[in-house]
Formats: sequence, structure tokens, C-alpha cells
Amino acid sequence: MGVVVSLDEGRSDPEASLSDLVALVAGGMDRVNAMILSRTGSDVAMIPEVANHLIASGGKRLRPILTLATADLCAYSGGEGAVKLAASVEFMHTATLLHDDVVDESDMRRGRVAARINWGNQASVLVGDFLLGQAFRMMVEVGSLRALDILSAAATVIAEGEVMQLTAAKNTETSEDEYLAVIRAKTAELFAAACEVGPVLAERPRAEQAACRSYGMNLGIAFQLIDDVLDYGGTSASLGKNVGDDFREGKITLPIVLSFRRGSDEERVFWRRTLEQGDVRDGDLETARAILKRHRALEDTVERARHYGAMARDALALFPNGRMKAALLQVVDFCIARAH
Amino acid sequence: MGVVVSLDEGRSDPEASLSDLVALVAGGMDRVNAMILSRTGSDVAMIPEVANHLIASGGKRLRPILTLATADLCAYSGGEGAVKLAASVEFMHTATLLHDDVVDESDMRRGRVAARINWGNQASVLVGDFLLGQAFRMMVEVGSLRALDILSAAATVIAEGEVMQLTAAKNTETSEDEYLAVIRAKTAELFAAACEVGPVLAERPRAEQAACRSYGMNLGIAFQLIDDVLDYGGTSASLGKNVGDDFREGKITLPIVLSFRRGSDEERVFWRRTLEQGDVRDGDLETARAILKRHRALEDTVERARHYGAMARDALALFPNGRMKAALLQVVDFCIARAH
Repeated sequence: MGVVVSLDEGRSDPEASLSDLVALVAGGMDRVNAMILSRTGSDVAMIPEVANHLIASGGKRLRPILTLATADLCAYSGGEGAVKLAASVEFMHTATLLHDDVVDESDMRRGRVAARINWGNQASVLVGDFLLGQAFRMMVEVGSLRALDILSAAATVIAEGEVMQLTAAKNTETSEDEYLAVIRAKTAELFAAACEVGPVLAERPRAEQAACRSYGMNLGIAFQLIDDVLDYGGTSASLGKNVGDDFREGKITLPIVLSFRRGSDEERVFWRRTLEQGDVRDGDLETARAILKRHRALEDTVERARHYGAMARDALALFPNGRMKAALLQVVDFCIARAH
Repeated sequence: MGVVVSLDEGRSDPEASLSDLVALVAGGMDRVNAMILSRTGSDVAMIPEVANHLIASGGKRLRPILTLATADLCAYSGGEGAVKLAASVEFMHTATLLHDDVVDESDMRRGRVAARINWGNQASVLVGDFLLGQAFRMMVEVGSLRALDILSAAATVIAEGEVMQLTAAKNTETSEDEYLAVIRAKTAELFAAACEVGPVLAERPRAEQAACRSYGMNLGIAFQLIDDVLDYGGTSASLGKNVGDDFREGKITLPIVLSFRRGSDEERVFWRRTLEQGDVRDGDLETARAILKRHRALEDTVERARHYGAMARDALALFPNGRMKAALLQVVDFCIARAH
């Protein structure tokens, strides 16, 4: 933790970095949570069961928080609109997670058994579709065609990113640029859209919309890169998923991309066997971590995340200083400090 | 075919029933097909590959045809709007088919190998999501919030219907009402929405919107019931799928619901073994067809379809006679005549 203090400009407690923002949007988030609960309702009993299994499993709800926060940053005072769009964003995220579990054949999600294990792949696919439908219904209720445009485009881009990842999966030759294109689409696009619809609802100038979008996009990239690092170095308890999931699933993430290029022929044989051929044996995860350490791949991935974090911060420069802006800047620190 | 002549009010060729409508909307459908082709494009090569595998496999495109036809019936002259909504409707349908194949673990679709067999469940889930996203983007471009409301609500209802079917699947105690609720949601709702957005775009009175919706809903129910009959009695060549798929997948459809209730204890033992327990042996399909025949279950399912067909026809009564109305009435005959 000591390292974090010096690198993160004097902040000593990474958890505290999110708490200011959480406190500032607490009232709105109560309404978002009530909206989420009411919109997972259905006469078909399996739908709320499956949806709430995941929704109640304690995600941070960072994306809807960002929608409320950017709306507030832009002095939005339109009432339920931001709440509904925030809930829509969370539903889009939840739908993606449900479909991801099927795509990745995951057994665990957020430290709980994945929905598909309890209810089958079928329910995960279909309840995901239901939530996506409900997300669009809420957006339509808000009635902003521009917000609908942003979020429907995001839905498309996310799916494209997932397919890109599928194509890149198990290919150890993936370049850093290719990997960035994947995470921009599959993760950062929803952060960007979540942040962009705030100023859109508040009818702020395009420059502010673009600034919030850029903040979200770069924060999202940093967030995903740190997730990649946590998958090799975090603790199971703090992340709610087991260390080594990406490794076992043969996912090519930035730490692997960096190590593969910096490594020896022998190491590349190891990566090909484990990640491309899926031949993972006892002790391989430890070997993988040792190789990553030898090449400073985790540290350098954190450095890359810091770069995008800096871009996220700078994007907010055109907004006047205030509590909400300060809290949004702290979120960047929070995302990066998770790695330690 | 002789029976069809007398029951279907003098029409001798069931194929001809659809051809009038196809001819009337041919110009619009050329634009819809071009739109479909352009909107399946993506830099991610796997997306157009998977999407076009299914889209190019020769579905009748009945749903987008209905959108163009009802718009025309209501004297819509707004240009690209109806074309985009028609393409959206087809994308929603295609996304559902891709996800259905994963849910049903199907090997075949429209007489071709299902996409999931060639590209994996992953691609079917994700390309379905991509098409759903593209569908919403096109709707947003059209800009009618009411049409967006109708189609996004339909997306939710379809997913609910699929989950209902999942819950009812393999339950031979399913009642006719329960089964109707499933097919209203999973099949007829999209027919209803496809027909409702025509008069909505044309800004016609609510009564005409409701009439077109009712036409679509009842036509959709009739269409699904005939599909259920075809699965036990149609020929593989005409439907592009193998007879007996529903039986092998343990799907409870109306012919089964009727037979189960009318049958002997011994027959119910047979249905439970094959449909509930999935223990299907050589010769079971022939036995199933013999039981259905004994109880007139296929004929009576066609009779039920005729009832909904009659409701679909009557729904159009408030429109003045004309070529488009006549063609829409013929579509009802076409749907039902397929059973013979």
C-alpha cells in the first residue's frame, strides 16, 4: 500500500477514493436501485430469479453511478431521466455479463456460482435478452433520441468487441493495439456512453458531451487493464473472482501481450501450450506469474493504465472545480489503486 | 391439396396466396434487403459471416413484408422510415433465431447447419446481440418514439415468451391456455409489432394501429400453430427443417397438449418418457404421429389456427377494400394452407 501513496498523489486509502462519489450520488442511486428492482419484475418467475441472482451479488454499480455523476456535473435537473438511463446502463452491463458467462463457459461470477450453472445457458441468454429489452424500454421512456442513439450504438460496439475478443482469443500473437481495440469496444464503450448521456440529458454543449465521453472511455480502458492485472495478482476475496480465470480460459490480456513479446523462445512455448492449446497443468499458474514478474508485465500494465487515467483526468479540465468534479477525479485513482 | 381448395374459399394454390403481397411490396423489399446487407457489415469479419449465413438462407422475410404492407395500407409516404423499421424487425427476428439455436441446442436451421455448429455458441450469442443493437440503431434513426416503444416492448415480451417456454418445456401437463400465452409472446408479438408500426409511422388513428396490431397478433398465432403441425406432418423439403425436431427437443406444442388430454394412460406414459425424460428410441416418432392421428390432434390444431386466422381477417374490416388489403387477407390463407 505504501507504493500507492507516492504514486497516487498522496492518497493513502484507495477505498476512500470511491466513497466521495458514492456519497454524492447516494440519493439518486437509491432511486436507480428501486428502478432496477421494479424493472426486473416479470410474471415469468424465472426472470427475476436469474436477474436478481446477479444484480444482488454486489457489483459496485460504477456505470450507473457515473451516469448520475456526469448528469449532476452538468447541472442536470430533469428528474427521473438520469435515473432511468442509469438503470438502463446497469441492465446493459448485466445482460453483457450473463451472455459473457455463456460465451466464456464461466462457472463463477462475482464470487458466486454463475447463473448459467444454476439455471442453464438457456436462462442466461434469454434473461440477458430480457434485460436488454427492458433497458431500451426505459431509454424510450426518457425520450431523448440522442441518448438512445449513444446507448444503442454502444450495444452494437460492445457486441463487436466481444466477437473481436473471440477471434483474438488464444492467439498469443495479438498485438497491444489489437488488444486495446478489443477493450475499448467491450468495456470502455459502455463507460463512455454512461458518462456521455449525462451532459446530453442536461442539454450541454457538444464540447462537454465529448469531454465526459472521453473521461468515461479512458477510465474504462484503465479499469479493464487493472482488472487484467488483478486476474494474475489480486486476491480472490477482493475481486470476487478467482485469480487465474483469464489464464485458465486462455484469454490474451495485456500482461500476456507484453510478456510474450519480451520473453524467450522457451517462454513462448509455455504460453502457446497453456493459452493456445489449453493444456494447463498443476503449477502452470505459478509459472505464468513468475514469467510475468520477470518481465515486469503487471507493473507495466499498471503504467499503461495510469496513462489512460491521466487522459481521463485531463478530459474533465474544461469543467469548473467543485465537489463532483473532484470526486470523479478520485475515481480514476480508485480504479488504478485496486491493482495494489 | 383438394381439401385446401374447399376450405380456403376457392384458392387452389397456397403459394399464390403470398405472391400478390410479395409483388406489391417488391420495390420496398429491395431497399430492405439492401439495408439488411449494409447493416450486417462490420470490420470484425466474423459478424457478417455469421449474420449472412442465416440471413442469406432464404427465409420468407414475412415480418418485414408485413411492416411495409401495413405502412402502405395506411398510405404511408415517409420514405426510408418503413424500410428501416422493416429491416429492424428482420434483425430482431434473426437475433432471436441465433439465440434460439443456442437455447434449443439445435443442429439445423432453415435446412442449413445452424450457425452455432460452424462458429460456436459464442458467435451465435454475440452476433445476435450485435444484430439487436443494429436493430435499435435503425429504429433510433427513424426517430419515432412510439415505434421505438412498440418494438422495444416486443423485444422484452419475446424474451419473456422464450423463458416461459423454457419453464413449460418438457411439462406434458401444460394447458392450452398456457401454451397460447407462450406463442403469443415468443412468436405473435413480433408479428403484431411489425404490423403496428406501419400505421404508427403513417400517423393513422389509434383504431387503425390497434387493427393492424390485432391482424399481426392473430396471424402470428395461426402461423406458429401451423408450424407446430408441420413439425409432425410437413415435409422436410418444404420447411427447411426436419420433421420431428420439436419431438426430439421435448417441446410441448398444441398437438401434444391436445393428444395428452385426449389420450389413454398408456399414451401418457409414452409422452412422459419421450418428451419429459427425453428417452426417444427408434420408431418413437412414428408412434407419436400415430397417436396424434388417432386423436385428430393435427387437424384440430389446424382448426384452432383457422380461428385465429378468422380473427386476423376481421381485424382488417375497418380498412376500405383494395389490392393491399386483399393481399394481406390472402396471407392468412397462405399461412394456414401450409399445413396441407
